Amino acid sequence: MKINENYKKLNESYLFSTIAKKVNEFIKLNPSKKVIRLGIGDVTRPLCKSVVSALKSASDEMGTMEGFRGYGPEQGYDFLKEKIQKYYLEKNTHLELDEIFISDGAKSDLGNILDIFSKDNTVLIPDPVYPVYVDTNTMQDRKIILLEANKENDFLPMPNDNLKGDIIYLCSPNNPTGAVYNKEQLKAWVDWALKNNAIILFDAAYECFIDDESLPRSIFEIENAKKCAIEFCSLSKTAGFTGTRCGYTIVSHELIFNDMSLNKMWLRRQTTKFNGVPYIIQRGAEAVFTPQGQKEIKENINYYKENAKLISQTLKKHNIWFTGGKHSPYIWLKCPNNMTSWEFFDYLLEKAAIVGTPGSGFGKCGEGFFRLTSFGTNENTKEAMQRLDELLK
Amino acid sequence: MKINENYKKLNESYLFSTIAKKVNEFIKLNPSKKVIRLGIGDVTRPLCKSVVSALKSASDEMGTMEGFRGYGPEQGYDFLKEKIQKYYLEKNTHLELDEIFISDGAKSDLGNILDIFSKDNTVLIPDPVYPVYVDTNTMQDRKIILLEANKENDFLPMPNDNLKGDIIYLCSPNNPTGAVYNKEQLKAWVDWALKNNAIILFDAAYECFIDDESLPRSIFEIENAKKCAIEFCSLSKTAGFTGTRCGYTIVSHELIFNDMSLNKMWLRRQTTKFNGVPYIIQRGAEAVFTPQGQKEIKENINYYKENAKLISQTLKKHNIWFTGGKHSPYIWLKCPNNMTSWEFFDYLLEKAAIVGTPGSGFGKCGEGFFRLTSFGTNENTKEAMQRLDELLK
Repeated sequence: MKINENYKKLNESYLFSTIAKKVNEFIKLNPSKKVIRLGIGDVTRPLCKSVVSALKSASDEMGTMEGFRGYGPEQGYDFLKEKIQKYYLEKNTHLELDEIFISDGAKSDLGNILDIFSKDNTVLIPDPVYPVYVDTNTMQDRKIILLEANKENDFLPMPNDNLKGDIIYLCSPNNPTGAVYNKEQLKAWVDWALKNNAIILFDAAYECFIDDESLPRSIFEIENAKKCAIEFCSLSKTAGFTGTRCGYTIVSHELIFNDMSLNKMWLRRQTTKFNGVPYIIQRGAEAVFTPQGQKEIKENINYYKENAKLISQTLKKHNIWFTGGKHSPYIWLKCPNNMTSWEFFDYLLEKAAIVGTPGSGFGKCGEGFFRLTSFGTNENTKEAMQRLDELLK
Repeated sequence: MKINENYKKLNESYLFSTIAKKVNEFIKLNPSKKVIRLGIGDVTRPLCKSVVSALKSASDEMGTMEGFRGYGPEQGYDFLKEKIQKYYLEKNTHLELDEIFISDGAKSDLGNILDIFSKDNTVLIPDPVYPVYVDTNTMQDRKIILLEANKENDFLPMPNDNLKGDIIYLCSPNNPTGAVYNKEQLKAWVDWALKNNAIILFDAAYECFIDDESLPRSIFEIENAKKCAIEFCSLSKTAGFTGTRCGYTIVSHELIFNDMSLNKMWLRRQTTKFNGVPYIIQRGAEAVFTPQGQKEIKENINYYKENAKLISQTLKKHNIWFTGGKHSPYIWLKCPNNMTSWEFFDYLLEKAAIVGTPGSGFGKCGEGFFRLTSFGTNENTKEAMQRLDELLK
């Protein structure tokens, strides 16, 4: 048996293990100091009441002869798809129910969607970036071109007439930079994709952090995007589902390439290699979209936004350049005094006992930048910003 | 963008849609007759009490600051892996915790495992077969050789010296035939795999139906199998998890091909393209492996076994040849009077209002055979067998 040799080309990331090692050493040398972690990319607020209640009712149902559910539709139950359909209608996008695919999260679908594309495509990926875009394509031996995101383009790379490629990843609000495309910018990408017969893989996992109505929360707010884009979304950050696992992917009927409907191809992929999200979890997800659920999750989102505001204010006060923080849980800052990402990491840890994430860990263009996140507690974020304020004086 | 053209080679299966159409027509013409469905491949008994209780406690935990869990390990929590480790120890197999990967079900893993193999492998697949083995390899353009399973080999194809291939699928107890390999037979496959540098993908989803201690419930009961086999298992049929979604895949550290550890490759695949099974579901799965959970799930398994016994007895009485029914929820019978699979389907529906599954739907070698399942209620199975008894007199 011959293995997939492409796995030998994958880079191992030592980013988070190196961070852990450095933090452990610091704690050992400074046992009395309170370390505050603002590097975390995971939510910390518990599931909201409506969700817990729905999960428990569905569990009870599954224990009765009448309520028990076996295999469900691989693409998800209509009761949840109808809620998502309505959620998109509020953003002025009409979707057919069979254009919505319920999944166990954006990470799975962003990787698995590549099954329906030929190896013989060129992939465009912004740098810095969520590492799985690069890794999943390396596993399948596709040619990858990195698009430079930098201070000059506000970490929002744009197309130009010379740019050629078949598959382009866009993540807005961005992980790790927190930068958000406006409608004109996304329209430029849609126009480019249509002209080049390319497909946009649009990662909208952080859409719920946008609170400016003029900024697009879905690529489908752009005309003709249904002809050239697949959208991936998740309840992970919206409703604290990182450990509960539910997301959705939108594949329009208008996506036709080589005379094949991508909607039909994705349906075939999912019915062949996936058996759907647990019924109980889909009931929990449904509760997120009720009026009460929306009220409750918004309290959590606002809690994180409050943290983002605190961090942004401190950086502004000291004239530190940054993106994000406004429509995103992430704050991406230029390291002061031209420090490298790791130099600033060490400086922040040693002088203020604050842990963040070195930007260079997300790609070459991340060097000299640094990511802070708003997923900590209000108390800790406040204390960390007081220390940072002191340090930068 | 170029699509994966291999999708054009996939056969559409009209098996279950044709069955549904025929049954609907029959009901329309015979509104007073009670149709009994023995074609169903899904469980019908509700989740057991221990599981429901664990699901609800975990849901409560997720609603508290202290109990909330975000991203878990992609390969599953130790609390569940430890239970599975113990389950294997009872079958005299020692597994390291990191050889156990928790998944959302055998179907996902059986498809996704192909990511770590080269396209340039020949795949051996018994016929008749669970259709996803063929489809998932067709999607990746691998050469497929079908191994004939038939009445002569008791639907248990065996290797011979001329047989060449790189990847072989074995499913025991088998879906759809219910046939079970004994230790000598599995040893012959392990020896063949080691000699040919091949890998066995062992689908053990129905292992819990085996109640003869001399029959292997895991391929790892065969010496050296850890060097040449990956085992896929699921709680779907064991504990009624078809709609709750949890399984596990065993990839030993002894699996080394082209100097690469398949365990490390699968870990890399899962950490890159999967985010783990919901915490709540893993707690539900953990409860299956407690003494009380085991007691409760065995009641359900015995309930189905009682149905299988009823069906077997009726077939024996009328000298109808069949496999399965003893260590399997499936009964695979030779259609009487040399009827084709669909002829017998129509005969059984029209004369006795019983629905089964035509064997020809599972592959060429299934022609002339028929699948009945034990997943109905006791009452309905009893009534169906009375009707069958009458019909075959």
